[in-house]
Amino acid sequence: MSAVDACASPAPEQASLTPPLTPPSKTAKLTKEKEEVPADINIPDNYVAWTLKNQKALPPITWENLWNELNYLSLAILTITPSIAIWGACTHKLCWQTLLFSVFYYYVTGLGITAGYHRLWAHRSYNASKPLQYFLAMAGAGAVEGSIKWWSRGHRAHHRYTDTDLDPYNAHRGLWWSHIGWMLVKPRRKPGVADVSDLSKNPVVRWQHRWYVHLIITCGFLLPMFICGLGWGDWKGGFVYAGAARLSFVHHSTFCVNSLAHWLGESPFDDKHTPRDHLVTALVTIGEGYHNFHHQFPMDYRNAIKWYQYDPTKWFIWVCSQFGLASHLKVFPDNEVRKGQLTMQLKRLWEQQEGLRFAPDSNDLPIISWESFQEQSLKRPLIVIAGFIHDVADFIDQHPGGAHLITKFIGRDATTAFFGGVYDHSNAAHNLLSMKRVGVLHGGTQLGLDDKAVPPAQRLRVARY
Amino acid sequence: MSAVDACASPAPEQASLTPPLTPPSKTAKLTKEKEEVPADINIPDNYVAWTLKNQKALPPITWENLWNELNYLSLAILTITPSIAIWGACTHKLCWQTLLFSVFYYYVTGLGITAGYHRLWAHRSYNASKPLQYFLAMAGAGAVEGSIKWWSRGHRAHHRYTDTDLDPYNAHRGLWWSHIGWMLVKPRRKPGVADVSDLSKNPVVRWQHRWYVHLIITCGFLLPMFICGLGWGDWKGGFVYAGAARLSFVHHSTFCVNSLAHWLGESPFDDKHTPRDHLVTALVTIGEGYHNFHHQFPMDYRNAIKWYQYDPTKWFIWVCSQFGLASHLKVFPDNEVRKGQLTMQLKRLWEQQEGLRFAPDSNDLPIISWESFQEQSLKRPLIVIAGFIHDVADFIDQHPGGAHLITKFIGRDATTAFFGGVYDHSNAAHNLLSMKRVGVLHGGTQLGLDDKAVPPAQRLRVARY
Ligand code: HEM
Ligand code: HEM
Ligand SMILES: [Fe+2]
Ligand SMILES: [Fe+2]
Ligand SMILES: [Fe+2]
Ligand SMILES: [Fe+2]
Repeated sequence: MSAVDACASPAPEQASLTPPLTPPSKTAKLTKEKEEVPADINIPDNYVAWTLKNQKALPPITWENLWNELNYLSLAILTITPSIAIWGACTHKLCWQTLLFSVFYYYVTGLGITAGYHRLWAHRSYNASKPLQYFLAMAGAGAVEGSIKWWSRGHRAHHRYTDTDLDPYNAHRGLWWSHIGWMLVKPRRKPGVADVSDLSKNPVVRWQHRWYVHLIITCGFLLPMFICGLGWGDWKGGFVYAGAARLSFVHHSTFCVNSLAHWLGESPFDDKHTPRDHLVTALVTIGEGYHNFHHQFPMDYRNAIKWYQYDPTKWFIWVCSQFGLASHLKVFPDNEVRKGQLTMQLKRLWEQQEGLRFAPDSNDLPIISWESFQEQSLKRPLIVIAGFIHDVADFIDQHPGGAHLITKFIGRDATTAFFGGVYDHSNAAHNLLSMKRVGVLHGGTQLGLDDKAVPPAQRLRVARY
Repeated sequence: MSAVDACASPAPEQASLTPPLTPPSKTAKLTKEKEEVPADINIPDNYVAWTLKNQKALPPITWENLWNELNYLSLAILTITPSIAIWGACTHKLCWQTLLFSVFYYYVTGLGITAGYHRLWAHRSYNASKPLQYFLAMAGAGAVEGSIKWWSRGHRAHHRYTDTDLDPYNAHRGLWWSHIGWMLVKPRRKPGVADVSDLSKNPVVRWQHRWYVHLIITCGFLLPMFICGLGWGDWKGGFVYAGAARLSFVHHSTFCVNSLAHWLGESPFDDKHTPRDHLVTALVTIGEGYHNFHHQFPMDYRNAIKWYQYDPTKWFIWVCSQFGLASHLKVFPDNEVRKGQLTMQLKRLWEQQEGLRFAPDSNDLPIISWESFQEQSLKRPLIVIAGFIHDVADFIDQHPGGAHLITKFIGRDATTAFFGGVYDHSNAAHNLLSMKRVGVLHGGTQLGLDDKAVPPAQRLRVARY
């Protein structure tokens, strides 16, 4: 777990493969200046291709090398926390006050990640006042998922290199990997470069990074224990339920944004990458489940754009803005959002259109003289409508208006009758008629018939450019 | 009510304005031949326009003329039946056997109309064997809505002149008129011509027309009374519930096809006329609620095309076909059905597309030399990407990748970096970029850049022909 990574000193040969961490404070002076220059200011134009091709990765995990490759500290935290919760649940009764507080505290620490780590710091989707920033930094620490800086660096790489090996939680490596696997072993590759120099300059982020270990102990465990203990005498419940159990839920809730949100649901805005939208994901992640939208418009403070979609993180940010605690809530231009939706719908219709047969147009048909038409209609049932010659052999008996109305027009022009004189045929009838075209009458396209030559189903079409 | 019309002899001056009825049997010989010639075989090509313009209609109904214009017999039947039901419900307890039988008999007589009158006779959407025809003719008589021939003639006119004054239940005249109003007064106009010569030749239809009054008394009232009476001793219940109450429900159920089905719901197949699709209508009409489909494809034995939609009439016909009682179930070619759906969806997307702003293309922009581009970028932030010059002034600080990556490229070509070298921007980013075009670089469209010049949102478009 990141909580640990943030303070463990990596083995030297591994150093370049782990996320860049705030070094021990003695070297702080030296690195401070380095950090204020964006990490990616001087990367070459072919950085992505070059790095994927030339940077060496650790070997894949196998049963043989597993024991050497495990990240034991993350593993410990991710197994011990739920174990405490289960042991506690078996030995200590849950009282309603502790239950209520645990749920409440789940939302507080969850929002620390979603409204704080994610939307504020990783994506700069709004500005937060100092008090709100300190609140979010502490609440986020209570979720024990690493410092803001470490987390945002990984998350920015995730957005920047989505679905590639430079993405630390590359969803193409499967649900298990993107959910938790990536934390349980040593990273196979250094994540792609991502700039966090803006965060290095932020005093709240630096403060949190510096006091990170103290903060996770305080906000993750001591605070909930003290509240339950002093409040209604349930010290152990505070530790077990509001501490350990709540923390396990927050962990897997956040992890779902990397796993479930890249796997379950629809892609209404773009389908180039794995992110998806789904209500279920939103429910388990405090509103981060509209992930297809989010990857397209990451600097938007919203994940859900419709009022009825579940996005409490957005609601929280909005309420903060009403109280003057947040400002400059960013939204992507609506025109562009709707373009994405339109494109996705057109893709679907394009496929439907490709699966259909349409009528031949004049260029694909032989031109027949009136005399020849007359002659040939003696042999098979031909009818002229709107300048086209139609063979209606397979339809005479099917005609809802009766066979007599069709046979009457064999060898004749039925344009007026067909176009409303006798019966104003439906668009479906026009489409069907167009499928029976076998020729064009020479000189038959009279004035005003041009628009009648295009069957209704071919007036609007999905065109490709 | 039609039950009555079918045997009432209209006043002479009115004759041409009422539906054509089977004349008394003494004249049967004479009319038989006349009937076998289709009524519309010799109508002129401009029949519809001519008739609407020149045929005189009765004056509109007002409070003054109402008493003279009422159709007292229909009015009586449509008020006395529910009155009996209400009086009965107050004076006689409903036992469960009668309840069950009434519901069952509602479906039997309802199917007589939907599977018989409507889909078999009015629309010829399948062939029925003699036993099934007799069953449907009797069940339909039990619904007391006029003889097959009278009903089908009106219904064919309804399809042929939908939403015009030649349509006996023209939905444009309001919900009340299309539901019941049209029956309560003398018809304002003769319905438009519609051929029923096929029905005049059908022995079952003729048999039902001939014995119509006997049949409605027997199937509408005597049969349910005898079944409830002999079955569980509930003679009065049989009359009140399985007779009168059931009949009122069947009436309004059928009337809903003319009112509700032309008013409530969606138009997934075509929106030229009023018919609509709605589950609620389907539920109250034994499956006739997919009326938008039905008006487009009236000779299709189905109203609902998806298996999960509620269309028991279709199920009934299908089951009959499995038992050899029905055959030649007609379905409209799927290709044409899907074209209708596609067109309707394209209409929606066309409107969405019209509401959006898209990027200018090369023809709308000035061509700028590299030198001039260099010079002008000193004054405002210009960047070349894919041969276009973009002004990014309003975006530098909004850029999720950080301002530094953009400023770095002012006065330079960022094509490679933007197109994946540094970051493989989302389609949304490409769309947004295209909105910032201010010029075309002279000689800037290199080989292989052509497809990059079209923003993703403009590769698929709804085009109009
Ligand atoms: C081969 C060409 C024709 C085709 C493909 C065709 C197709 C159709 C179709 C699909 C319908 C069902 C209702 C609808 O979709 O609107 C229909 C109904 C009808 N057609 Fe045609 N038709 C043709 C020719 C004609 C001609 C030449 C006439 C008139 C002289 C005519 C008169 C009618 C009438 C009166 C109906 C109404 C039937 C009713 O609703 O009861 N049709 N036709
Ligand atoms: C004016 C032109 C540009 C526009 C309109 C633009 C737009 C965007 C947008 C909308 C995003 C959000 C993510 C996405 O939608 O894919 C983004 C992210 C990004 N852009 Fe640009 N960009 C521009 C120029 C550049 C250039 C020239 C570079 C590189 C040299 C660059 C590098 C990045 C990076 C690295 C990200 C990822 C940020 C993250 O996810 O943390 N952009 N850009
Ligand atoms: Fe993601
Ligand atoms: Fe994100
Ligand atoms: Fe209708
Ligand atoms: Fe119909």
